[in-house]
Amino acid sequence: MRAVDIIQKKRDGGALSPEEITFFVDGYTAGRVPDYQASALAMAVFFRGMTPEETLSLTRSMMRTGEVLDLSDLPGPRVDKHSTGGVGDKTSLVLAPLAAACGVYVPMISGRGLGHTGGTLDKLESIPGFRVGLSLDEFRSDLRRTGMAFIGQTPQIAPADRKLYALRDVTATVESRPLIAASIMSKKMAEGIDALVLDVKTGDGAFMKTFEDSRALARAMVDIGRGMGKKIAALITDMDQPLGHSVGNSLEVAECIETLKGRGPRDLEELSVELAAWMLHLPAGEPLDAARGRIRKALASGEGLRKFREVVEQQGGDPAVCEDAGRLPRASGTVEVRSEARGHVTRIACAAIGHAAMVLGAGRETVDSAIDPAVGILLHKKVGEAVSAGELLATLHVNDPGRLEDAVGVVRSAIHIGPEAPPSQPLIREVLR
Amino acid sequence: MRAVDIIQKKRDGGALSPEEITFFVDGYTAGRVPDYQASALAMAVFFRGMTPEETLSLTRSMMRTGEVLDLSDLPGPRVDKHSTGGVGDKTSLVLAPLAAACGVYVPMISGRGLGHTGGTLDKLESIPGFRVGLSLDEFRSDLRRTGMAFIGQTPQIAPADRKLYALRDVTATVESRPLIAASIMSKKMAEGIDALVLDVKTGDGAFMKTFEDSRALARAMVDIGRGMGKKIAALITDMDQPLGHSVGNSLEVAECIETLKGRGPRDLEELSVELAAWMLHLPAGEPLDAARGRIRKALASGEGLRKFREVVEQQGGDPAVCEDAGRLPRASGTVEVRSEARGHVTRIACAAIGHAAMVLGAGRETVDSAIDPAVGILLHKKVGEAVSAGELLATLHVNDPGRLEDAVGVVRSAIHIGPEAPPSQPLIREVLR
Repeated sequence: MRAVDIIQKKRDGGALSPEEITFFVDGYTAGRVPDYQASALAMAVFFRGMTPEETLSLTRSMMRTGEVLDLSDLPGPRVDKHSTGGVGDKTSLVLAPLAAACGVYVPMISGRGLGHTGGTLDKLESIPGFRVGLSLDEFRSDLRRTGMAFIGQTPQIAPADRKLYALRDVTATVESRPLIAASIMSKKMAEGIDALVLDVKTGDGAFMKTFEDSRALARAMVDIGRGMGKKIAALITDMDQPLGHSVGNSLEVAECIETLKGRGPRDLEELSVELAAWMLHLPAGEPLDAARGRIRKALASGEGLRKFREVVEQQGGDPAVCEDAGRLPRASGTVEVRSEARGHVTRIACAAIGHAAMVLGAGRETVDSAIDPAVGILLHKKVGEAVSAGELLATLHVNDPGRLEDAVGVVRSAIHIGPEAPPSQPLIREVLR
Repeated sequence: MRAVDIIQKKRDGGALSPEEITFFVDGYTAGRVPDYQASALAMAVFFRGMTPEETLSLTRSMMRTGEVLDLSDLPGPRVDKHSTGGVGDKTSLVLAPLAAACGVYVPMISGRGLGHTGGTLDKLESIPGFRVGLSLDEFRSDLRRTGMAFIGQTPQIAPADRKLYALRDVTATVESRPLIAASIMSKKMAEGIDALVLDVKTGDGAFMKTFEDSRALARAMVDIGRGMGKKIAALITDMDQPLGHSVGNSLEVAECIETLKGRGPRDLEELSVELAAWMLHLPAGEPLDAARGRIRKALASGEGLRKFREVVEQQGGDPAVCEDAGRLPRASGTVEVRSEARGHVTRIACAAIGHAAMVLGAGRETVDSAIDPAVGILLHKKVGEAVSAGELLATLHVNDPGRLEDAVGVVRSAIHIGPEAPPSQPLIREVLR
């Protein structure tokens, strides 16, 4: 077998065999197939796509370049959730404790973020002392003890994906559905889980802007999960406005804690409960209504918050943040954005809000950028809410005044005020199984 | 400017600006833009194509990464010919001396061959002593003295193309029309010529199998030449059967010498005369009929042969090959292929004959293969000729009996005999200006 023939076959629209895919992936990971052949193949895949069978083979091959966790000794179902990412998306910090409080083991291997805000890891690291760099052994024993643990990508998990993703990032081959699906799933399928709930975002603030693209990505990932014998479902959820009120790492942690206290924004609570209910439902078919009931109970009773506190303590963080959000990093100043008109919020340009948060320092512009955990944006109004002239729309939490003016301008023009409230959008647009 | 943005622009169907193309080409040549970005861009170009303006910019940028010869001190027109290559294509050795004998300076920078037989350089090197590795200074002074010289690609000419071609070869991005056109033209435009005649082959034995593809490639190259202010024409010529009777390096040299003596195959003579006439016609518009007349006169008078003798001597070769073909390398044995039926030759599968010649050792299977100058195939019949049962169809000239059986089988099944001669095809299918 020769790499160049495999590239040519894909270039000419052929479907690669599992053997060809494994040859390429293993060769690439080991350095026998050079970067320049991998990028040429990735570009050919961008144009030609992959069949579900090829995508499954690619996922399996990438997964097998690294360690596949065996968590079969845990005395309960092992379930994770994965989100394709969006502005203000922070459900992991809410749903994982709720699901764990209901007896599910949640082995959460998360990424860092590029763009608007940090990923789950960056958010957690805004809690003083919180350590995400566990070894796989620590991760395993934390999981057994508490029912959940947060860890970053390790070099042992799907090294092919790590190498390929870095290459795709600099060769304009990120935006390929089968490559995105295989990248996500090769890592998730290595987690030793029985079931996976996918939160596929759709809309202006999502990676996939159109509903059709989101559904196609969801379909591809669900097919992979089923092909690998896992229980899996994908919820396609709205990302036409930020989720919750906060965008920025410590602001989002504070909002999650409020939500676990039953005082969070309605959309964040609703989505977290629904995703967590699916995590209970999938492994053994517990009726969804019963699962929702159990999750709501764990929320109302404070069990979810206690589980969160436990995890923070377990991973070296300051558990007192649960009682006193003032212990989280706080920006040195705030700037208010007020409405110039009265009416209703008709739209919040979601990607623009994410961009403004990044400009303030909440997100990474490049892989090497440092994140400021304290900065971000609080949005006081959601789409559809009434606003009077002069009323507070947003508060920017700011440390470095350097690009503040840009950010204020972007936020101001991102929040549209009109005479009437738009028709309300459902938060959960579709469920794929 | 960032290479990844340029790749993405092309991926998404945009047209690159001259500045973007120069940034990429210069960066790649200097090693600032890595191979993996160049191969991704090449694959994107494979799918998206390039506008004539982009192709011109790419040619100019690649040409300018190296030396551009200035031959303006020569007291006559400087004209070259380039062929896209085919089986038994040997016109350079005939037409260059004829054109030079008529006062044209022919600065011929040629390549080596991959596939069926060697390139012009390999053919010339089958003449004992012939040296193609001239310095650019030797090349220039030979050219001034004799009116012609043969030289190989030098690292000083279009180094970007050399690097990019090697990359395309291993990333399945060779078959892209704008990249092929720019690769050829970046080298030819560096030769310091006033005019260029292109011989674009079409048919089974050509790189471009269909007439439409051949015409599109011809169009792309003619557009580049005109865009760079050169006189240029492309003859689209038949490659559905090998040109002349011989396929193999020293066999082809012998056939060229016979042709320069007026005793060559009709097709080889006709095409060489026509291409040479265009070389006279292009620079100052000498009427084609007059140009043909002058070339025919140089052929009939033996002036062409004398010029060839002069060049062989000038470049260190044994000029006595012109009188005694026995001084050329000769294979140790011959194998005959005879007709099993009577009728007419209806088809000679051209690529198959080329492949058989390569199997015998006349061509390179990989860049590193050594060529055996002595071996090859003599075809005794052209398409349309009558054949009786048992009559000689081909003679294989063989040194290594290793893969002889394969070659004999391929040659036998390549020559089709049927009851009737097929309609005759014109040798020159179209001329593009």
